[in-house]
Amino acid sequence: MHQVTPQITNIVELLNANDTTAVAKLFATAHPANIADALEQLTPSNRPLAWVHIPKEAKGEVLSELSEGVFRNLAHALDNQELVSAIKALDIDELADLIPDLPEALLADVLFEVDTQTRANLGEVLSYPEDSAGGLMNLDTTVVRDNVSLDVVLHYLRLKSELPEHTDTIYLVDRQNRLSGILPIDRLITQPGRDSAIDHAIDAPVTFQCLDDEQDVAKAFADYDLISAPVVNNNNALLGRITIDDVVDVIRDQAEHDIMAAAGLKEDEDIFAPVTKTSRDRTVWLAVNLVTALLGSWVIGQFEGSIQQLVALAVLMPIVASMGGNAGTQTLTVVIRGMSLGTISRENMMTVLKKETMVGVLNGIIWALVIAVIATLWFQNIYLGLVIAAAMIVNLVMGAIAGVCIPIFLDKMNIDPALAGGVALTTVTDVVGYFSVLGLATILLL
Amino acid sequence: MHQVTPQITNIVELLNANDTTAVAKLFATAHPANIADALEQLTPSNRPLAWVHIPKEAKGEVLSELSEGVFRNLAHALDNQELVSAIKALDIDELADLIPDLPEALLADVLFEVDTQTRANLGEVLSYPEDSAGGLMNLDTTVVRDNVSLDVVLHYLRLKSELPEHTDTIYLVDRQNRLSGILPIDRLITQPGRDSAIDHAIDAPVTFQCLDDEQDVAKAFADYDLISAPVVNNNNALLGRITIDDVVDVIRDQAEHDIMAAAGLKEDEDIFAPVTKTSRDRTVWLAVNLVTALLGSWVIGQFEGSIQQLVALAVLMPIVASMGGNAGTQTLTVVIRGMSLGTISRENMMTVLKKETMVGVLNGIIWALVIAVIATLWFQNIYLGLVIAAAMIVNLVMGAIAGVCIPIFLDKMNIDPALAGGVALTTVTDVVGYFSVLGLATILLL
Repeated sequence: MHQVTPQITNIVELLNANDTTAVAKLFATAHPANIADALEQLTPSNRPLAWVHIPKEAKGEVLSELSEGVFRNLAHALDNQELVSAIKALDIDELADLIPDLPEALLADVLFEVDTQTRANLGEVLSYPEDSAGGLMNLDTTVVRDNVSLDVVLHYLRLKSELPEHTDTIYLVDRQNRLSGILPIDRLITQPGRDSAIDHAIDAPVTFQCLDDEQDVAKAFADYDLISAPVVNNNNALLGRITIDDVVDVIRDQAEHDIMAAAGLKEDEDIFAPVTKTSRDRTVWLAVNLVTALLGSWVIGQFEGSIQQLVALAVLMPIVASMGGNAGTQTLTVVIRGMSLGTISRENMMTVLKKETMVGVLNGIIWALVIAVIATLWFQNIYLGLVIAAAMIVNLVMGAIAGVCIPIFLDKMNIDPALAGGVALTTVTDVVGYFSVLGLATILLL
Repeated sequence: MHQVTPQITNIVELLNANDTTAVAKLFATAHPANIADALEQLTPSNRPLAWVHIPKEAKGEVLSELSEGVFRNLAHALDNQELVSAIKALDIDELADLIPDLPEALLADVLFEVDTQTRANLGEVLSYPEDSAGGLMNLDTTVVRDNVSLDVVLHYLRLKSELPEHTDTIYLVDRQNRLSGILPIDRLITQPGRDSAIDHAIDAPVTFQCLDDEQDVAKAFADYDLISAPVVNNNNALLGRITIDDVVDVIRDQAEHDIMAAAGLKEDEDIFAPVTKTSRDRTVWLAVNLVTALLGSWVIGQFEGSIQQLVALAVLMPIVASMGGNAGTQTLTVVIRGMSLGTISRENMMTVLKKETMVGVLNGIIWALVIAVIATLWFQNIYLGLVIAAAMIVNLVMGAIAGVCIPIFLDKMNIDPALAGGVALTTVTDVVGYFSVLGLATILLL
């Protein structure tokens, strides 16, 4: 891979060596995205030191490429006038992305400094939720009336010196600004100029409305291989367009969210945030975990007498809990993915539940046999082996059922299954695991 | 969201009701991606029934949109001639994606049926690893010599009736086919035709070589907001181009992989695969988990006498193990993401280790205090509370250190940290958790 803008790998070393000339030289030719990457790798105290060496014209773009956590941290360290002059140079859609992260005083300054048209456009874009098609929308559509020839379109475009980024299509509209067709830009080049524009227009494979969910937008872009797509209102009047670069960010952010949420983390966690902030951010998750762990302990506490009589139970019960948790997590993961990809719907939910339960039964029997042999040999007690085996079957089946039902339930309650699913599931498999081992042993062995 | 191709939600119902006319009608106007989605939602036995209603010309595209698991399952159920005629209609890059999944007999048939040029092109694309820039590459570049005027370029393009999909740039090459510039297609429209093409060319922000990793390609596309980018050889000769639609698939597949791998699943797991196949697929993961769980049990087994004397240890030890596992998983997740995004590098690794260890110490102290109070009140034994508290600090610090070191170690060993990191970490925190609770108690209390 050859990059015209060199990758910045040794920036930490250069800053440590206080070689500011070299830092400035690197930044002078680097792409804003690479400069942002470099800042992310620095500790909070080093970021303002690096910031002063970023070329003035790149500063806005760099800010817009930073992850939320790092942006907030850096914004805190810089003075307002510096930030405002960097931010006000941004395009509308980048501005709109940053604004929710700005402190209020700074926001007022930015809005004061941008021109009236930008302020009006910003108002428009910001009036939609951040995670909606409206929030993703750009206003830089290239629009012509639908009753003209290709030559007229060409003539009109020649009056501009360049087209907005990622313009792969020209939108054709009628007198009421209603979208009547989409003209792929290559038709302008390959087709005879006398032809009517509308004759070369294609139907949009999909049009979005402002309140459409950004995840649906992302799926449609991926399904239909789109570069851009129109956003229209209820009357099919053209409001703006969504471009693939912003959709790529949505897809990456969602992936980030799903992975981080599973460990109770926010997707914009700054790796180099201060220890106290990180510790505080992680407190809630550990508190929830403590409560669920105490629930498991409470179950064990109910059987203190049984454990005292047969300590082997304390040795073996974590295995049953752990196997149920792992098998259940597999089901849970498959179901959450299926739900978010749309593969699992109300119609086939029962099929999934039946199938996963059968997998639980089958796996339960297999691992019950294995653990029965191990427990019998280890503790020279075949009855103990049989009890552990029975508990294993119970817990693996329970894990499978919980793995299907928990995400469905959480989704109905509007709780993100990617965030809460794992804790809920292991709570179930821990409690059921301990209870079935200790309960069955108490009834059958003691 | 309005889609010209209707979404297929009730296909399961229609098939169950045996309403084949309605199915055929839905498929007749649907986008291949939507038809593929519908097939994914069906059980394996229903998929061939739906397949016969897919319009002939869409069948190839549908196959190329299916996930690997579902494709293999369907391919198994259909006869070879049917598959070959669907597949041979595909574009080179779609063909190249499918070929690794084809059974050998089928592959031979497909290669026999396509024309010589396609076979040669396929050979070229397939000669690179699937996860490299060469594997992602399309051969449909639009190329002109770099010494011509814009008018000549336009004239040349008019001879084609349309340009390849996602053509946002024309490649300018010299006599030796070396890339000398990239002409954005809008310049053809907005700039005077007399101008020389090379004067309006831009430098490529990045050029790829065939063996570049697809993850680096994806990052560059996201960083530089690219629609397409050239692939060149060592002499800068143009070989092909990569387009954003394929990059979007890479990004989505990687996200899928990371999420599924964390539960020991393959990213193409077919939700509706037969029970025995699913059970078999999940066996290895559960076997690994059993071994790690046995390791934890072995540690507990070393302290049977201690537990018999003080059963409260058996009640409390899972809490310490669980808290260490959760805190460690948070560190692990942050580190794995940081490594894959490039935020964590060799230079700042020690900073990360120091910081996470400090977080572990701080969180350890906080939760040690909490659990000390709970244990003391629960079992009316302040010494027990102190032992559990000490064990909590040990295990949370251990979790933090393991969370940083395990992914670094796995990465060095070329093992995917997303796959093995979680199991390795919880093994460490279970063993250390049990050992510190039981060991400290044995020394200090008994």
